[in-house]
Formats: sequence, structure tokens, C-alpha cells
Amino acid sequence: MVFPQTSDRRRPPLITALAGGTGAAKFLRGLTRVIQPDELTVIGNTGDDTRMWGLHVSPDLDTVTYALAGLLDDTKGWGIREESFRCLGAMAALGRETWFNLGDRDLATHLFRTECLRAGQSLTEVTERIRRALGVRSEVLPASDSPVRTRVLTPGGWLGFQEFFVREKAQVEVLDVDYAGAEKASPTPAVLNAIAAATAVIICPSNPITSIGPILAIPGISEALLSTPARVLAVSPIVGSAPVSGPAGKLMAAKGLPVSAMGVGLAYRAWLDVLVLDCRDGGLAPDLTRLGITPVITDTIMANREAEVTLARTVLEARE
Amino acid sequence: MVFPQTSDRRRPPLITALAGGTGAAKFLRGLTRVIQPDELTVIGNTGDDTRMWGLHVSPDLDTVTYALAGLLDDTKGWGIREESFRCLGAMAALGRETWFNLGDRDLATHLFRTECLRAGQSLTEVTERIRRALGVRSEVLPASDSPVRTRVLTPGGWLGFQEFFVREKAQVEVLDVDYAGAEKASPTPAVLNAIAAATAVIICPSNPITSIGPILAIPGISEALLSTPARVLAVSPIVGSAPVSGPAGKLMAAKGLPVSAMGVGLAYRAWLDVLVLDCRDGGLAPDLTRLGITPVITDTIMANREAEVTLARTVLEARE
Repeated sequence: MVFPQTSDRRRPPLITALAGGTGAAKFLRGLTRVIQPDELTVIGNTGDDTRMWGLHVSPDLDTVTYALAGLLDDTKGWGIREESFRCLGAMAALGRETWFNLGDRDLATHLFRTECLRAGQSLTEVTERIRRALGVRSEVLPASDSPVRTRVLTPGGWLGFQEFFVREKAQVEVLDVDYAGAEKASPTPAVLNAIAAATAVIICPSNPITSIGPILAIPGISEALLSTPARVLAVSPIVGSAPVSGPAGKLMAAKGLPVSAMGVGLAYRAWLDVLVLDCRDGGLAPDLTRLGITPVITDTIMANREAEVTLARTVLEARE
Repeated sequence: MVFPQTSDRRRPPLITALAGGTGAAKFLRGLTRVIQPDELTVIGNTGDDTRMWGLHVSPDLDTVTYALAGLLDDTKGWGIREESFRCLGAMAALGRETWFNLGDRDLATHLFRTECLRAGQSLTEVTERIRRALGVRSEVLPASDSPVRTRVLTPGGWLGFQEFFVREKAQVEVLDVDYAGAEKASPTPAVLNAIAAATAVIICPSNPITSIGPILAIPGISEALLSTPARVLAVSPIVGSAPVSGPAGKLMAAKGLPVSAMGVGLAYRAWLDVLVLDCRDGGLAPDLTRLGITPVITDTIMANREAEVTLARTVLEARE
């Protein structure tokens, strides 16, 4: 048996994933059991970022990082497992708003991030420091170092995404969604490079409007997806006519998209090569094909760790 | 029996206390069992204030407030009882310094304070909001809204007080102590009024150099103590030739003061009327009398809650 020299080795496949929160986190956790974690670069949504108690909170970046670090609370789908909320209780006693559940261990991440940002570091630098400190071998990149903030227009006016999603539990009518700051934001060089140099780009099973939408709203990202030589694949977060989790349905409808895998295909049609959709939606395959998107039918429900791995493997196979 | 009309009532005695941390907190807790809590105004030391993880921490103000709120951890003499340190553990994982033990519930106080200060509120306003939220009926006033920071000169250079006291556990040689910012600071009007309007001013059994010293270093405070019509009484934190707790001995020596109740008397001689000192130091009475200070001999060790009350009662009786 002859061992190849380092220089003879094929460059490992580089997978770049665009990611939101819970669904992406589970899918990426599965993916890093199929490929080497350091072959993965995650481009994370910052549209959910918010200030809470004076701290910069990046919920989606943290959910992905915690999942890849083996720390995610699987029951809640966010935050750190075996978390406590004692600071939150003390904040309530001080009369501060506590609808956003910041746990005691999770707080350290926000304190650290806020302190580093205040010292002049970029969100990219801080995110890198956090993922390394937590032992995550995949790169985690915020889509932009400039603020992009998803806002939801309700009959009562504009709400920040966390106000809509967590405080109001998404139980208000949605008239519109926009991404404040996106038009002035730019993707980081690392993000553009990760898309251009990838052997495959995967859009995780995330809300197309408020998880992937804020990334796509940054000038230059859609163009990069269009021009990358890599195959671009997406996993539909919609099964039948409802999202697997979260408020994606209501938000897609507000944006005039059908609440179905077809709506996901339409949102991404400009640059999407493959859409992985659930067995229950097999009937949509001909319509997707007509859009120029190759449908791949599989079980997309990640009910356990094994299902995360199986779905990841199916997506990887679909890139050939 | 005739009940006096409200207007006939004597104005309640207003007690103003200058306070550091643990010793002061226990003494004041006893005092508020002898007088009504709302008859007490505490002027707290801010020389120990520090920034930790980007947060404004006011250890002495908090120790006093927690004690008066019934929250103090009596075993440690600081912080909140039944505290957890889960955020601290997560901060260690992120590589941040964790020698200053910030508990999860305690963190809420610092987050709240930092957010209010950043929003433009004064330390006086924030301290008032915190003590009211925690149900403390006594006023708690920082000596100044301007920063005054105790620094300790060691053979290795200047250290902030918490670096010296907590990080280095006071185990370094002390060459000098100063109060950075004090000469440009001014006492708040509330502080000057509390001294001028009091029926008695009590200097708590606190370190004269790093607890009371930073208050006295603010221009106008010594003058206020000199001109108040109130009797000014102090409780010695030194018994024999050693402090009851903390590094007062080393710091007094560095400032050229005898490490004894006599040293305390010398530090306060310009305006002190009465010094309450421990039975073991009864032999110093003639020397104190020669300084123009009336000695009151009692047991000053607050070994339990009853002893705190007894000492407070003795001090109150000594004001007549």
C-alpha cells in the first residue's frame, strides 16, 4: 500500500453552509459526522441579533456553535443543555425585561462577545474566538460584520425579530418583513471566499425569510451563489404546507411565497441546483424540475441524531 | 394615654454612616434592628469599584445593599447567599479572567448598573433603583458620582484595589496607596446633606485606608464632617494590633499609621468625637482622650446577629 504524499493528496471537499438556528444546527451536527468538521464552513445569520441587558446577542451563530460543540439543549432547540436561569431571576427582581431567556452559562458568551466588540474586534473575530474556545473545528462566519436586523411589520408597527418571535411568540399578524441595514452591509471576504472556493454550498433547512433571507439581502451574496462553480443545494424546512418548526409559514406568506417546498424553490430559484424535499412532497418534483431545480426526495424530519446524519449523507450524495 | 399628633412628633433621629464592605454591612444590619431602617443613610465607598467583563462592579455598595436586603452571604462576607457561579465557569472556558468571583445572581446587579450608567444615569440614581428593587428601606449613597479608584503601589507597580485584594490575595508588599480621581471628584449634594442634617454620623468598622479613606479623599467630605453639628462616632476595625478582617493592617502601616485603635483615632482625629474600641484595647483610652477623642470600650467582635445589634446599640448610646 502506497501512502500518497501530502502534495499528492486531493484537496478535501470544502462544504459551505448557509445557516439559521435550530434546523440548521441539527443538520450541521449530522454533517460533521459524515465529513471532517474542519472541511465545513458555516455562514451564519445575524438578522436575529439583538441587544439584551446591554449585551450583543447572536442567537443563530450561538445555536450553531453550541450544536457543533455538543452543548445544544436539544429539547429547546436553543441555548445550552443543563442550563440554569438564576441571573434571569435576579434581573426580574430588578424589574428588567426577561422575556428573552438568557441562561447563566449562555450569558458568558454574550458578555465575552460584547466586551470584544466594544474593544474594537469584529463580529467575525469574536465568533472565531468563541467557536475555538468551545472546541468547534468548523469555521463559523457571520454573514457580515455590519449590522443587518430583521424587522417584522405588524398591525401595531415594526417589531425586532426577537420581539416578534420570542416576546410575542409569533402570535401577531405579519404584514411585511425587511432587513434593516442590509443594503449598506457587505459580506466579509471570508464569506465570499467560502462560497467561491466550496465544492458544494448547502442552504440548511432554515426559514427562507428570517434565517436565510437576511444573508441573501446583503449585496454580493446572491451574486456569489450565482457565480460559484460549486453545486448549490438546499434542504426544504417546509413539509407539506407547514414548517417543521418556527414561524416560517406566516413569514413566507407575508412575502407572497407559497408555504411549501415549492415556495422554498421559488425563493432560491435564481441560483439553486438541487432541492432536497420531504417524501410527503414528492408530487412537487415535476414543478421544481420545470424551475430548473433538481428535486431529491427523502425523509427530512430529523427526529434523532441518526436522522441528522442520514439527511446530511443524502444531501452530500446529491451534490454529485 | 395621649397619642402625639404627627406634627408634635420629634423628627426621627437621622443617622448617617460612612461604610466600606463586610464589617460595615454587618454593623449596619444590626443598626437597622435598633433604629427604623428609613432613619439610616449610608454613604458607601466606591474606591473598590472596578470593571470586570465590561461591567461596572461596585463591591462595597453591593455588600451593604445585600446585607440590608437580607441577601448577604454571611460565610463569605460578600455576595449573595446560596449563589451559583455557572456563568463564571463558562467564562473560564472562554479564556476570560475569573479571579473576581461574580455569581450568577450578583451578575444581574452589575448588568443592571452598567446598562443604566451607559444610558446616562448617575451611580447615585442606579444605586437608589437597586436598593429599592431589593426592598432596602435605608438610603444608600455612593460617596461621589465621579470615579475614585483606590490603587496600591507594590514593588511590581500600581495595582487596582481588587487586583491587590482579590487577585493577589493581599499577599504583596504595599509601598503606598492612593485614590485616583479623588482630587477631581466631588461629593454629591445628597452626601453633603446627609452629613449636615444627621443627628449622628457613624464611621463603620471598616478599613480606614481603603474603605473610609477613598470617601475622605473627596474634597469637601472632611470639611463636612468637621462642620456638621452631629456627633461623629467611629468603630475601630482593629482589635489589638490586627484588623478583624481584611488587609487594613498592611495598608495602615504603609500610610505610616500605628496598626491599632490608636491608628484609627489618628486617621480620624481632625473631626472624630467618639471612638468605640474593643475591651482588649482599654489601655489606649488615656491616649485617645489626650487626642480629644472620647473612648467607649465594648466588645466589637460581631460574631453573630445579636452581637451586631448589641454593638449598634452601644454606638447609638455613645452619641448622647
